[in-house]
Amino acid sequence: MNFKQVARVICILLLIIAFFMLFPLLIAFAQGDTLIVMSFLVPILAIILLSTLVLIFTRKNVSPFISTRGGFLLVVLSWLGATFFSCLPFYLSGEIPHLPDAFFETMSGYTTTGASILTNIESLSSPILFWRSLTHWLGGMGIVVLTVAILPLLGVGGLQLIRAEAPGPTVDKITPKITETAKILWITYMTLTVAETLLLMGGGMNLYDAFTHTFGTLATGGFSPKNNSVGHYNSAYIDGVVTIFMLMAGTNFILYYKLVTKKLHSVLENTELKVYLGVFLAATSIITITNYGSIYGTFGKSLRFAGFQVASILTTTGFTTTNYAQWPQLSRVLLFLLMFIGGSSGSTGGGIKVIRIVTLFKQGWNELKYLIYPRAVFQIKMNGRAVNKEIMYAISGFVFLYIFLLLLTTLIVATGENDIITSLSTSLVTLGNIGPGFGKISPGGNYAFYPDYIKWYLSFIMMAGRLEIYTVLVLFLPKFWKR
Amino acid sequence: MNFKQVARVICILLLIIAFFMLFPLLIAFAQGDTLIVMSFLVPILAIILLSTLVLIFTRKNVSPFISTRGGFLLVVLSWLGATFFSCLPFYLSGEIPHLPDAFFETMSGYTTTGASILTNIESLSSPILFWRSLTHWLGGMGIVVLTVAILPLLGVGGLQLIRAEAPGPTVDKITPKITETAKILWITYMTLTVAETLLLMGGGMNLYDAFTHTFGTLATGGFSPKNNSVGHYNSAYIDGVVTIFMLMAGTNFILYYKLVTKKLHSVLENTELKVYLGVFLAATSIITITNYGSIYGTFGKSLRFAGFQVASILTTTGFTTTNYAQWPQLSRVLLFLLMFIGGSSGSTGGGIKVIRIVTLFKQGWNELKYLIYPRAVFQIKMNGRAVNKEIMYAISGFVFLYIFLLLLTTLIVATGENDIITSLSTSLVTLGNIGPGFGKISPGGNYAFYPDYIKWYLSFIMMAGRLEIYTVLVLFLPKFWKR
Repeated sequence: MNFKQVARVICILLLIIAFFMLFPLLIAFAQGDTLIVMSFLVPILAIILLSTLVLIFTRKNVSPFISTRGGFLLVVLSWLGATFFSCLPFYLSGEIPHLPDAFFETMSGYTTTGASILTNIESLSSPILFWRSLTHWLGGMGIVVLTVAILPLLGVGGLQLIRAEAPGPTVDKITPKITETAKILWITYMTLTVAETLLLMGGGMNLYDAFTHTFGTLATGGFSPKNNSVGHYNSAYIDGVVTIFMLMAGTNFILYYKLVTKKLHSVLENTELKVYLGVFLAATSIITITNYGSIYGTFGKSLRFAGFQVASILTTTGFTTTNYAQWPQLSRVLLFLLMFIGGSSGSTGGGIKVIRIVTLFKQGWNELKYLIYPRAVFQIKMNGRAVNKEIMYAISGFVFLYIFLLLLTTLIVATGENDIITSLSTSLVTLGNIGPGFGKISPGGNYAFYPDYIKWYLSFIMMAGRLEIYTVLVLFLPKFWKR
Repeated sequence: MNFKQVARVICILLLIIAFFMLFPLLIAFAQGDTLIVMSFLVPILAIILLSTLVLIFTRKNVSPFISTRGGFLLVVLSWLGATFFSCLPFYLSGEIPHLPDAFFETMSGYTTTGASILTNIESLSSPILFWRSLTHWLGGMGIVVLTVAILPLLGVGGLQLIRAEAPGPTVDKITPKITETAKILWITYMTLTVAETLLLMGGGMNLYDAFTHTFGTLATGGFSPKNNSVGHYNSAYIDGVVTIFMLMAGTNFILYYKLVTKKLHSVLENTELKVYLGVFLAATSIITITNYGSIYGTFGKSLRFAGFQVASILTTTGFTTTNYAQWPQLSRVLLFLLMFIGGSSGSTGGGIKVIRIVTLFKQGWNELKYLIYPRAVFQIKMNGRAVNKEIMYAISGFVFLYIFLLLLTTLIVATGENDIITSLSTSLVTLGNIGPGFGKISPGGNYAFYPDYIKWYLSFIMMAGRLEIYTVLVLFLPKFWKR
């Protein structure tokens, strides 16, 4: 493995993070808060010092080529390194004085989970909360580039299905293609960021609130600087804007590119998009009707709360406008079931992802047909194209490891004497990068009560879920480390 | 489709059931209870009359050959017909006066689920309770023959893996092979029945109690004529005997045949058996230790209750000796997770089954290895033999449809305003043919409170789960009914 090059790339990534720390640093500087200024300055200087040393000492005889294995190592170590340095401002400022808490909160940010150990969010300073939301935005961007441009090349869990361009890449084409794809995604992400920020300001938010909520939305993260999340504003307009942008963030970003390049045809025929929107509409309808009579006076209000919460859970964002754990049972169960799905591939959303569920459902259905015509050949089609068997294999392997990890995590959370619903939903919403769940982690609750070993474990699970499991698990194979 | 032959086979099956109704009829006769006598006599005569007519009218020009499609239809219609006629004694005697209840209870019996709508079991008469337990025993026998001898031929969900003999059957060999296999299974079942009955009587049970509990054990059913299930006897000896026989009932019956034919070697190397016993030992150990300090005074007592309940849930029996829903959370969560596994293939146990879970886990693991060596070939081995890809496909299709049906059922149960844990565990334990669950259906609870539409739906789900899903779902394919 090309450890030198891996180290160099990680250093460059850390330098980018140091650059983004300048924004909260500026806010702290403007507010004249020396402690907070120092809490950002120390990690920034540490990153610069460390990176410079590494870059200098590894500058000779470096091959730019990173193998598949090196790719996995790079992704995981980058994520861990970024989380470690990024949690320092929380820790050094004393606003999250316990290291496992600070690490958990940062991992939750970068993985766009939105699970929080904070009991009173509004008691934290604004630069710190800005940084907390910014980790979402950076993580969301990172994950889109990873899942669309990098992981498919590494063959992870059927992600080949969402590769930006159809034909397989050859080695010499990899770099330009990644760069090009990343650029398209970056532009999309920036455009959406500006658009939502402006729209939220139009609804009466100040710039700070608009930025932080936009970060939480587009990353499908869920961190809000307000204790009551988006519910703080109690505004139909804001709820509407956030709902629409959550849905957009949970959509494959490649589709926006196709939209502007006038391939509307292929957008409308996208199987994943149709199912994703279908699930959203069906779940919203059922919940709107269920809640209408018993909670909300008007149909419109019921629709507003239902649509927001369904979008928030389905896209794995995790914002809340009400405590859904007090809704009628049917609505609760439906939200719970949505936690098994997740957003679209190539979006910032987490979870199993719509495309994998559709593919497996089609496979199960095909198997039924084989019972009647054992000698026929039934292909599984996605967007009009046949899915090859190797990809089907990769997808079913992925989903079963996912479910296995889900159940194992439930058991590990239960060792802290947590009830079934708390343990299971904690597992679902950390592995799926959603955030709030049911039981003790219902809206209004938080992760503070978990003992440290569970916080560390959940930090690991959030990362595993975010990196499509395989990327992390592969490092545990003894074969991985063999020559 | 050869409807004539299908009808004839169903009639023969109903006649067998009418024959078995003679046993409770005799008990009722001895007790001189005319109403109960009539409640059995009417369905017996109805079956005889109907079957005779059908057999006479279809006697000409019948081909003995039944196609694959005819096979599916036969299995489902037999199951429905048997359940309908068998529920009549409950209904006619007035002991279960509501038809959906009587149908549910009988379906629960034949599918060896053990879910009950009875609120006070002991208030029913002994012939009726005997019949209730006998449906378990008949259903258990039926399912072993089906899964070992018939369904593998129909290609259902990877069951080819447990076919009694290795090479594929040719059409002219099918009948003798099925007959021969069925005979072996029948002898095993009878031997175990006699053995457990005698052992239970040795522990102080009367013949009636010993028989009914043996029926519930060997079928991995769970119906007991006592309100407190096996806990009624409060005997370490009885708990021990039932635990061992539950485990034996959840083991592939083919292995007993191999054991007596001196193929001990292949029994010890059976992957499924090793994992099955491994899960039992691991779960029992964790629960014993967890419960030891907080509930049971002695280690032995904790082990006894833990072992019994783990065996009961893992094998999908559903007997109880205590209300496990009041155990420490970790023990509860562990039992809940065991509900996702099920017994061994070729046993009377239900659920997803150990072999499928092992196979999929191996596949997921293989996919990890492919990430490092994309061009290598990693085979999935079971009992030392490679599993072919078509079977892997069938298994993953099966498990995915299973999970889909599980989540859909959760939602449908929730429409009756049931909480997440009640809805989810009801779905798990009916589809998996287990019986008791958590929430409102914890031990001591029952299914009486469900509205009729949920009872009908759950009757369907118990049947779908019992018949490996595919057998039932295939009838819903429009293709099935085409020429």
